[in-house]
Amino acid sequence: MATPWAHRYAQRTHIIKSSIIRELLKLTERPGVISLAGGLPAPEVFPAERFREACQKVLTEAPATALQYGPTEGYRPLREQIVAQMSRYGIKATVDNVLLTSGSQQALDLIAKLLINRGDRILVETPTYLGALQAFNLFGAEYVTVPVDDDGLRTELLDGALRSGPKFMYILPNFQNPGGVTLSLERRKQLVKLSEEHGIPIIEDDPYGQLRYSGEHLPPLVVLNSKNENEAGYFDGSVIYMSTFSKVLAPGIRLGWMVAPTEVISKLVQIKQGTDLHTSTFIQMVAYEVSKDGFIDQHVQTIRRIYRERRDVMLKALDEFFPPQVTWTRPEGGLFLWVTLPQGCNSERLFRAALKQDVAFVPGEAFYPGGDSGGETGAHMRLNFSNASPEMIREGIRRLSIAVMEELEHAGALVTA
Amino acid sequence: MATPWAHRYAQRTHIIKSSIIRELLKLTERPGVISLAGGLPAPEVFPAERFREACQKVLTEAPATALQYGPTEGYRPLREQIVAQMSRYGIKATVDNVLLTSGSQQALDLIAKLLINRGDRILVETPTYLGALQAFNLFGAEYVTVPVDDDGLRTELLDGALRSGPKFMYILPNFQNPGGVTLSLERRKQLVKLSEEHGIPIIEDDPYGQLRYSGEHLPPLVVLNSKNENEAGYFDGSVIYMSTFSKVLAPGIRLGWMVAPTEVISKLVQIKQGTDLHTSTFIQMVAYEVSKDGFIDQHVQTIRRIYRERRDVMLKALDEFFPPQVTWTRPEGGLFLWVTLPQGCNSERLFRAALKQDVAFVPGEAFYPGGDSGGETGAHMRLNFSNASPEMIREGIRRLSIAVMEELEHAGALVTA
Repeated sequence: MATPWAHRYAQRTHIIKSSIIRELLKLTERPGVISLAGGLPAPEVFPAERFREACQKVLTEAPATALQYGPTEGYRPLREQIVAQMSRYGIKATVDNVLLTSGSQQALDLIAKLLINRGDRILVETPTYLGALQAFNLFGAEYVTVPVDDDGLRTELLDGALRSGPKFMYILPNFQNPGGVTLSLERRKQLVKLSEEHGIPIIEDDPYGQLRYSGEHLPPLVVLNSKNENEAGYFDGSVIYMSTFSKVLAPGIRLGWMVAPTEVISKLVQIKQGTDLHTSTFIQMVAYEVSKDGFIDQHVQTIRRIYRERRDVMLKALDEFFPPQVTWTRPEGGLFLWVTLPQGCNSERLFRAALKQDVAFVPGEAFYPGGDSGGETGAHMRLNFSNASPEMIREGIRRLSIAVMEELEHAGALVTA
Repeated sequence: MATPWAHRYAQRTHIIKSSIIRELLKLTERPGVISLAGGLPAPEVFPAERFREACQKVLTEAPATALQYGPTEGYRPLREQIVAQMSRYGIKATVDNVLLTSGSQQALDLIAKLLINRGDRILVETPTYLGALQAFNLFGAEYVTVPVDDDGLRTELLDGALRSGPKFMYILPNFQNPGGVTLSLERRKQLVKLSEEHGIPIIEDDPYGQLRYSGEHLPPLVVLNSKNENEAGYFDGSVIYMSTFSKVLAPGIRLGWMVAPTEVISKLVQIKQGTDLHTSTFIQMVAYEVSKDGFIDQHVQTIRRIYRERRDVMLKALDEFFPPQVTWTRPEGGLFLWVTLPQGCNSERLFRAALKQDVAFVPGEAFYPGGDSGGETGAHMRLNFSNASPEMIREGIRRLSIAVMEELEHAGALVTA
């Protein structure tokens, strides 16, 4: 029966199509399927015991605060803890530069509300984080794209792209989702320089920065950009930085944060008030108790050890099972790697073949604005290595290789190789 | 130092002015001030022990689910519980009609995203909930207003207002925030009838429905509207209903829900995915454990008893201390009542006088689109009776009466009475 709503939907909702990818991914929940599709942390690393203790403490010592409305900016001790944590990575923020968010997806929503008018162009890497496109699309964003390679954003193409006047750049410098690639130091400097020259600011999304398994830590863009400390909070101010507790503690608590100049934070606070009043006081107090006294650093060591092994198992299995026509990135951290099949291959057909082998991935098109990579370099798969056990990862890649061989044959790429 | 952000703010953010009300309310945090301003539940009624047990259970029995990403629609057992709870109020929803939200403020944000194009007119009661105006303003809403009286929305003015073609009506039928008034049964029927005749749907916001202290329960609009049960979930479909756990459990968990036709829910789910992925799995599982086995019904009885006493104490103190030129509503439930001072009085001046007496309220202008009641009926105060103890409420009203007398004198209203 028709309801009176559909013909009243706002213009922005027309971009929400019933996505073929969403439909495909529903199929991966079938029992027996090894899913390399999601971006889920390994549940066995969740510090459940520490959470139990934290809940007891918070609900015994301060239930009247934890269960009550709280300030939109966030729970102050947690903001202070974040400031201390970030200072070790060279980010010189004060507590007034920090806004707690309901997961970093909300940070993207608040940024979109703050900055995007319908038709504004946003510069994004291709491929880029699907959730950012979803957040920005709701506000009528259009896109200027610059591709990544093994060293991250191809900054040699940036000058031209910036001439088209994007409102801001959205950049994932570390172990990019979905590419798994990391922006080199030289390119970071080049990016910040071009940002300044063109006066185009940067949103730096860094959910995985602490999850490095090999190579050297590189300075965040917000640090390279901070030439001069000033009273507004030690920022030059043209980079807004965002991160999350999802990958270092647990995503089910939905807790992230943003770092921005105080004038921007004050605007974001007003926007957040209209969006969800504030993030759960109880969750923030629990996250503070869980993280404190150096626990989070210890815990990050554990996560690194486990995910490093899984990454290595996946890379080894790819070397062993995949044919030479197929290439993939070799991430130094994070949760994902990116596989490229030659021209003529089709990732949807590949996905269906993979499902027949009881293994799943996310087809590459999901990570391009408009859902289309323009076929520039053939079909792509995003593979996750944080969630499945090493044994399942190896078996998953073995199964996937069968589907890949089929697809290469289909595309005629096996013969010509 | 200037940052490159301010001149890039989106058009929508221009409506966020540094609000005088926000500035005034900061002053109420001074120690010694009795605040009748906020909308805070009484912290002493929070079921902390029950929350402690629930956290233990969830984190012992299902930490891998509780701390992981979850479905955007919400935790299924909680959705089922909500369905069962609502059916007792005559709302015949299925689990597919229910979407969990990060507080009911988020429901307003999702509705705005779904329905509001810049310049769309929304029909609201005046006065109306401040947070709804904040949510809708961010999407460029304009307003058609219809005043409330002691029986709620003045439906005799509705036909004319609906001719201006609003996108939807936003209505708080029970113990309205800020008015404290309840829409009578006759007007409910009239409202639903006019909604159907004009084809203008309704958003029914019902945060306080269960908190009735006197009088008879009245059917929600969504029930009056459901003439025919159908496969889309028992709704005629022209009312979206929303409520929250904030007032019956605790606001610090940020948990609310929406009930809508399945086609609308499916759109809202996609919007919510881009907004915050999903509401905390952990919080939803804890809320389920806290609420279940009839606890929430028992607990609502406790809240009713405590708030009823506080309402009565406030009404008695108003009768005792306030002069006859001042009138107020007599709410049958909820958290607020609404005080009206005669023409010529000024609520900002009154607020400053009240602060000198160490007592605070929210000036009425906050609850009108554009922040201006047009002076139609003089100055207004919203008073909260849920948060302060009975002793503090009585003392607060006594102090406030001193400021009120001053303001009447200022306005020349004392002499002419």
